Amino acid sequence: MANPNSLKDLFIDNLRRAYETEKQLVKALPKLHEAAGFEELRYALQTHLEQTELQVDRLEQVFEWLDEKPNGKKCQSIKGILDDGKYVLNLEDDADVKDAAIIAAAQETEHFEIALYGTLRTWAGVLGNEQAMEALELTLEEEKTADSLLSGIAATMNNRAAHAE
Amino acid sequence: MANPNSLKDLFIDNLRRAYETEKQLVKALPKLHEAAGFEELRYALQTHLEQTELQVDRLEQVFEWLDEKPNGKKCQSIKGILDDGKYVLNLEDDADVKDAAIIAAAQETEHFEIALYGTLRTWAGVLGNEQAMEALELTLEEEKTADSLLSGIAATMNNRAAHAE
Repeated sequence: MANPNSLKDLFIDNLRRAYETEKQLVKALPKLHEAAGFEELRYALQTHLEQTELQVDRLEQVFEWLDEKPNGKKCQSIKGILDDGKYVLNLEDDADVKDAAIIAAAQETEHFEIALYGTLRTWAGVLGNEQAMEALELTLEEEKTADSLLSGIAATMNNRAAHAE
Repeated sequence: MANPNSLKDLFIDNLRRAYETEKQLVKALPKLHEAAGFEELRYALQTHLEQTELQVDRLEQVFEWLDEKPNGKKCQSIKGILDDGKYVLNLEDDADVKDAAIIAAAQETEHFEIALYGTLRTWAGVLGNEQAMEALELTLEEEKTADSLLSGIAATMNNRAAHAE
């Protein structure tokens, strides 16, 4: 990251990391969806992909309000998280193990986004940009909901596994 | 990650990622502490460093219960998050901006750990390892508390900044 001189610079830099993150997830989520077996998980991943596409549009709107170009910025964090998660696509032995690994990998991306949007939302407020704050808060809540949904699916799956013959 | 064949394999692989993560944080937190200006933030980072050292010991205990060597495993996620955060150490222009950036970087590490320990705690339970589940749950709660504390410090800082002359 180039050396930012103000909270506004930090804010824009991290908006660009969020934009890069969403763009990477638009590419990664279809692969997770294709690899997933459990129907509820497939549905959740498909729904979250559609939501992620809207979050990209929402960030573009924020950039427009700020009179900034909607450019991404290299983000080693999401790259590392997605690289660590790639192995799940090649798991073949057990569908439940594969689904458990997919949920774990997806929740790592959700939590990274929760941290990032939590910061962005707070900084937008400190900078007095109510409009951006509300948009970023909306995405933050969507990410928290997606994470909770994945925890719920994990619980259902584990429960089924525990009661299976 | 080598191709795991069972939930137990996945569990151990991710315990090793957690171990590597804590070891990296034991090295990174003193640098953030040294760079921080706001007294409450310095105290929180120092306290969390001590907690992180205990979390390393706790993971070693879990490995012992599982009869596994306490080895780390390459973790691109924490490497990426820490690489993205390195710029904060070189911020010089404004102490408040620097502290805001330190909090943001620290919260990204906390959220990665919340995702990781959330998964590990759940898998320990599914695998019927109550002892490991309780130890991992304890660390998970510590990470959540550390994250909340940082949010609280950010709010105090912002409030002071907003009311400053």
